[in-house]
Amino acid sequence: MDDLNLVMKKSGNDRTYINVGDACFGRDLVLMAGPCSIESYQQAETVALAVRRAGAHILRGGAFKPRTSPYSFQGLGQEGLEILKAAGKTAGLPVITEVVDVRDMELVCRYADIIQIGARNMQNFPLLKEAGRCGRPVLLKRSMYATLWEYLNCAEYILLEGNKELILCERGIRTFETYTRNTLDLSIVPALKELTHLPVVVDPSHGTGRASLVEPMSLAAVAAGADGLLIEVHNDPSSALSDRSQQLTSDEFASLSAKVQKARIFFSSI
Amino acid sequence: MDDLNLVMKKSGNDRTYINVGDACFGRDLVLMAGPCSIESYQQAETVALAVRRAGAHILRGGAFKPRTSPYSFQGLGQEGLEILKAAGKTAGLPVITEVVDVRDMELVCRYADIIQIGARNMQNFPLLKEAGRCGRPVLLKRSMYATLWEYLNCAEYILLEGNKELILCERGIRTFETYTRNTLDLSIVPALKELTHLPVVVDPSHGTGRASLVEPMSLAAVAAGADGLLIEVHNDPSSALSDRSQQLTSDEFASLSAKVQKARIFFSSI
Amino acid sequence: MDDLNLVMKKSGNDRTYINVGDACFGRDLVLMAGPCSIESYQQAETVALAVRRAGAHILRGGAFKPRTSPYSFQGLGQEGLEILKAAGKTAGLPVITEVVDVRDMELVCRYADIIQIGARNMQNFPLLKEAGRCGRPVLLKRSMYATLWEYLNCAEYILLEGNKELILCERGIRTFETYTRNTLDLSIVPALKELTHLPVVVDPSHGTGRASLVEPMSLAAVAAGADGLLIEVHNDPSSALSDRSQQLTSDEFASLSAKVQKARIFFSSI
Amino acid sequence: MDDLNLVMKKSGNDRTYINVGDACFGRDLVLMAGPCSIESYQQAETVALAVRRAGAHILRGGAFKPRTSPYSFQGLGQEGLEILKAAGKTAGLPVITEVVDVRDMELVCRYADIIQIGARNMQNFPLLKEAGRCGRPVLLKRSMYATLWEYLNCAEYILLEGNKELILCERGIRTFETYTRNTLDLSIVPALKELTHLPVVVDPSHGTGRASLVEPMSLAAVAAGADGLLIEVHNDPSSALSDRSQQLTSDEFASLSAKVQKARIFFSSI
Repeated sequence: MDDLNLVMKKSGNDRTYINVGDACFGRDLVLMAGPCSIESYQQAETVALAVRRAGAHILRGGAFKPRTSPYSFQGLGQEGLEILKAAGKTAGLPVITEVVDVRDMELVCRYADIIQIGARNMQNFPLLKEAGRCGRPVLLKRSMYATLWEYLNCAEYILLEGNKELILCERGIRTFETYTRNTLDLSIVPALKELTHLPVVVDPSHGTGRASLVEPMSLAAVAAGADGLLIEVHNDPSSALSDRSQQLTSDEFASLSAKVQKARIFFSSI
Repeated sequence: MDDLNLVMKKSGNDRTYINVGDACFGRDLVLMAGPCSIESYQQAETVALAVRRAGAHILRGGAFKPRTSPYSFQGLGQEGLEILKAAGKTAGLPVITEVVDVRDMELVCRYADIIQIGARNMQNFPLLKEAGRCGRPVLLKRSMYATLWEYLNCAEYILLEGNKELILCERGIRTFETYTRNTLDLSIVPALKELTHLPVVVDPSHGTGRASLVEPMSLAAVAAGADGLLIEVHNDPSSALSDRSQQLTSDEFASLSAKVQKARIFFSSI
Repeated sequence: MDDLNLVMKKSGNDRTYINVGDACFGRDLVLMAGPCSIESYQQAETVALAVRRAGAHILRGGAFKPRTSPYSFQGLGQEGLEILKAAGKTAGLPVITEVVDVRDMELVCRYADIIQIGARNMQNFPLLKEAGRCGRPVLLKRSMYATLWEYLNCAEYILLEGNKELILCERGIRTFETYTRNTLDLSIVPALKELTHLPVVVDPSHGTGRASLVEPMSLAAVAAGADGLLIEVHNDPSSALSDRSQQLTSDEFASLSAKVQKARIFFSSI
Repeated sequence: MDDLNLVMKKSGNDRTYINVGDACFGRDLVLMAGPCSIESYQQAETVALAVRRAGAHILRGGAFKPRTSPYSFQGLGQEGLEILKAAGKTAGLPVITEVVDVRDMELVCRYADIIQIGARNMQNFPLLKEAGRCGRPVLLKRSMYATLWEYLNCAEYILLEGNKELILCERGIRTFETYTRNTLDLSIVPALKELTHLPVVVDPSHGTGRASLVEPMSLAAVAAGADGLLIEVHNDPSSALSDRSQQLTSDEFASLSAKVQKARIFFSSI
């Protein structure tokens, strides 16, 4: 803990606030929604307009996709970034997207309002250092194998480079359970909020891998104190090029969005 | 799944209701609270009255304790059962307690309103069979290493012996994370409620092992759809003979109790 | 470690020797082989004679089977014990079999030369206490979720009741890896042999769940210092009533047996 | 498996041989030894000469170190590469070292005879692609959270870029067990050798994290069919700048080296 000077709270109510578009991480319940992968402009615009109507604050979408198999769809790359940015602009939404290669950091920063570092790259230290110098807010996902302390050390790497705008994200850890894609470790939300001043969001789409569990686990995340949610939404989940089983339809997201914001208000009142 | 005839839902709204005292599992948010171990009559009565005032429906307390070390306090045995029963009577609360030995089933049934089978005994098949014939409602905890399917098979063992009054309970699984005592797998709550007709409760005390995380995870459990909570409460946690770091004070429990019941009402309304 | 007085070594070369039939645990490489379940006298005798010819010292076979599903074959019970004993007698082999119910301890002790406590019952403390008083050598399997320290505490439970003839057994732990049935944790073999005076054997059949991996992992176990092996052998694995994919044929066992004994001699010489 | 065309065996005896210096992966038991981190020329030369005398074929040493904390020693970088290369030259040994940043691939290739990709970067796909084009043999470590199938997919990424000289390496997976640093999953050695044509080596230093377990687990790895070992050796482990508890002294390595080569000959003969 001596080695976590920057990430740890200095006092009980030490909190970091990060403004992106109209939303403020640390104050609002920030909803980031959109497709797993950007597949075409039409798809991106359709989803962007739908999630905006449903109350999303930020559009998410993958252009550079880390895929288990080299034969799977790897994302549209720079074209995907352009589409994402344009769809966000049409819908009036800032955008978040993942960077997987240090050499693409500058490129991604030209398009993205928030830089996402995915679970597989949580300990990609050169990427963390670049993120610490990139001048954009960064969302750092917890690796599927990381303890709380390892995760906080990765956050420290980014803060140490001078970037104060860091958002933490629980997205499920790997356990023996195979019914869910990962095991969403919601206990880490209140634990992180006790220990650090950083906003903490939750990704129940990857955390469960099952569309029917996304809404209940989103509500549970809010109850546990989450500052935001990252939700996969697709105009037609069954035809998606990645993560079919876990993406919500626009209607399902609209229902979720309304409920989690009500829940946020409820939990602020008790 | 062919082998889970009894445990699986026959239709979407197939639900089992279990009445114990004034509470109904499957309809109410049932709060079971009390000390990890029964240590003395005075302790048990003090806690029983306090949790009753705070809104608990059922008094919990261990008389036969499964302990990692043979040199740890093993519980008061039959004397503990007598104390638990008497303290419950004084407070007007039914009681739940664990049975760890098939040979004690009859004895425990003379005192307990609900029989608890602990995580370490989830696959103690002779004990499951006796529980299936014991004539009392049974609360079966998920083992720290059980998949959802293994857990449901253990439930099937009990139902197959004719006992229809079975309550499931998530209490945390074992993972690589050491910050929390176990990893509370809340995703299994909506998953179990989709699949089975049985009530599902959550034990955030063992699930986290940290008193400060019990309230947020209790709220998260309610948000995820839990039908009840099992909470360790002690008159003086720092002097407890077992599980010191995770037991709540009576005041902390009273705060939790009020909040979770409000949350239950809120979630029923959205 | 203060609480492990009986299980820990008093000095570097403190070792427990346990004689069963012609074999001595702690001195010889003891081979225990036989079917997962006793299915009929003919099956048991066929396998018993085959494994005896191939060099096994002890016949294994399940009469009381702990099965995940209540609808799976549960073993022949007392009839299975009788068959096992008779087949062992015909082949001139002592027998090892599992006890799963404290109420059966006396019965099983009438037939078995070694009492096995299975992985699911490692923390069935009443069963451990009975095993500590049963007057027979006991083989205690490590649970699939047990740390080394938890496992040693369970061994301490048995020694504390007065039984000095205890054999430890690694049989694989549960991890995220699904290619193998469990993850055989061979590092625990030299770790246990550094810490305790007890013999340590390995069960590569359950540890891997794949017949083709049993021989290489048996050799690895010997290299790591194991005092014996527990191997599932069936006259016709494809028709077995349980654990088909991991049982060896008699010929495969004969090959394994010859190689591991050569390996034992080799490792004693370097 | 359809997606693993390059990594899978075409026939039972399909094997890849990789020559580095005097050693041939796939034919010899190749010993790679040296310090965790390169700390100074003197340290590197001392260890290099010692491991050479003891029978090592290749010198290992870290110049770019992926460290959990940003405040830990991060390696000497290019200076470390120069020292490693010079020490290898003095001792007559080829060298292996880790690359952690795609931008350093060319630099590292100027010094290293084998490029190592560490466990934390197993799914750093840009790094895998560069490794596939780097023109050097690559040693790809299995991540602490990777299933066999995920690991093979990462190997496929490298082969698909045209590099045929790939060595696999088991170095322990993350489980609940904390006695050892990781859980060395030796079963994956015979599993990988059944499935793929690639050489498979084992790193028992990281796999166990305890010096006293390195020799028995090295012997076990050879028994399981490993094609080589990666061993941390330090001139003075107690003063090492990283991984103190798991580095062997030169004398311990000399003992290990002699035994594993005898074991290799023994296992080739049975």
